[in-house]
Amino acid sequence: MTAKLYIVGTGPGDAELLTLKAVNILTSCSVIISPRGSLSGTSTALDIVRQVVNIKAKEVHELYFPMKKIHIGYDPDPEVLVAWRHAAETVLSCLDRGKNVCFPTLGDPAIYSTGYYLYETICGIRPETETVFIPGIPAMSSCSAALATPICLGDEMVAIIPATFSDDRIRDVLTRFDTVILMKVNRVLGRLSILLRECNMLEQAILVERAGMMGEKVFHRIDQIKEMPHYFSTIIIRKNSCSVKVLMN
Amino acid sequence: MTAKLYIVGTGPGDAELLTLKAVNILTSCSVIISPRGSLSGTSTALDIVRQVVNIKAKEVHELYFPMKKIHIGYDPDPEVLVAWRHAAETVLSCLDRGKNVCFPTLGDPAIYSTGYYLYETICGIRPETETVFIPGIPAMSSCSAALATPICLGDEMVAIIPATFSDDRIRDVLTRFDTVILMKVNRVLGRLSILLRECNMLEQAILVERAGMMGEKVFHRIDQIKEMPHYFSTIIIRKNSCSVKVLMN
Repeated sequence: MTAKLYIVGTGPGDAELLTLKAVNILTSCSVIISPRGSLSGTSTALDIVRQVVNIKAKEVHELYFPMKKIHIGYDPDPEVLVAWRHAAETVLSCLDRGKNVCFPTLGDPAIYSTGYYLYETICGIRPETETVFIPGIPAMSSCSAALATPICLGDEMVAIIPATFSDDRIRDVLTRFDTVILMKVNRVLGRLSILLRECNMLEQAILVERAGMMGEKVFHRIDQIKEMPHYFSTIIIRKNSCSVKVLMN
Repeated sequence: MTAKLYIVGTGPGDAELLTLKAVNILTSCSVIISPRGSLSGTSTALDIVRQVVNIKAKEVHELYFPMKKIHIGYDPDPEVLVAWRHAAETVLSCLDRGKNVCFPTLGDPAIYSTGYYLYETICGIRPETETVFIPGIPAMSSCSAALATPICLGDEMVAIIPATFSDDRIRDVLTRFDTVILMKVNRVLGRLSILLRECNMLEQAILVERAGMMGEKVFHRIDQIKEMPHYFSTIIIRKNSCSVKVLMN
């Protein structure tokens, strides 16, 4: 049997939002390789995992993944490439020793996740590597649950976009869609407040900071946020305040 | 203590994709009220739940929710309203007896889920009802994992839309977004094949039937599907085949 790599979504922060499958795979793998966003800090994904899985007997590598902008189609920053390459080689050397490797990643691997950069780097070195993806709860799902507000119902359309886009592109999407999920909002809140007021959508915009984590906060007026919120912040803009006519005559 | 209603996402079908939180809440509630799409059939959500939670000692109601199109902002079909009203009254009568009620719903309550129709009907009758939403793995996350293909990376934009929209609206979204998730595709596959070929995107469209369930199937050529696929089918169209340049010089 060839050893496998499992790229596992941990959900957005609450360890209870791990799936049974994630817990089973994390428990059975003898190696955990976990991303962290700073050279000295801890790995948020690993912090979630250790709340429900005993990792003491496991071989654990916390590897640094620099948090820099990635523009699809362009070369990433060289520092980023070095980090991906190092992580890929660490994974491959564990697989070569016959160890199954688990790579926990925050939220869902499908949505803006480090997991795919690792996967593609590995595919570039050794395309035949057996890799299994395990979905996790996306942050936006946790935000929606915290607000008791659906992302979409019936025949509604949803857009998910990075808030770092130009005002024109965001304005265009805000005009066309019923619900807009803005990701990576923390550094551009001032600009977003102005844009949303201009589009008459400031009151429909709700920011959730650290959805599903300790210290979760909900802001209903993003123009009144004084300090820069945490990196784990998402804005949901839902235009249809009443989702459907449910009362009978 | 007032009894509470928990609206719980079960994930797309694989019982192992239930979260620890969903299992804990389903285990602790003495009443389960579960939706089914036909008068005589079983509830798919309940079928998932019973694989990991012992429901024998629980009070279980399987209630019929007609699967009819809902246009947000318009009155739903009277048959649908009657069903929602009946479900809401069943929930409220259990809460009145001091029983916590769990309503399991397929996938994630945030995304095109029956859970919010129940919730809003209940809010219309008794707004003070305590309701907690527990997110689940969305079907699209499970599709992405099955295909080892991300929904979005870096600065990409995603749209989630019902495939029952007009060709013009779908074409417009296909032009503007990096990834498009088409929901509710099973009845309109012929039309979609023509449209996608016209947009030169037929080869990027992948259909996943029953993602994460027994009998999961992946179709890489949707124009060659002979029989109508199951209602639980999703198409992912990802334009960027190579997600990022990962190899170092």
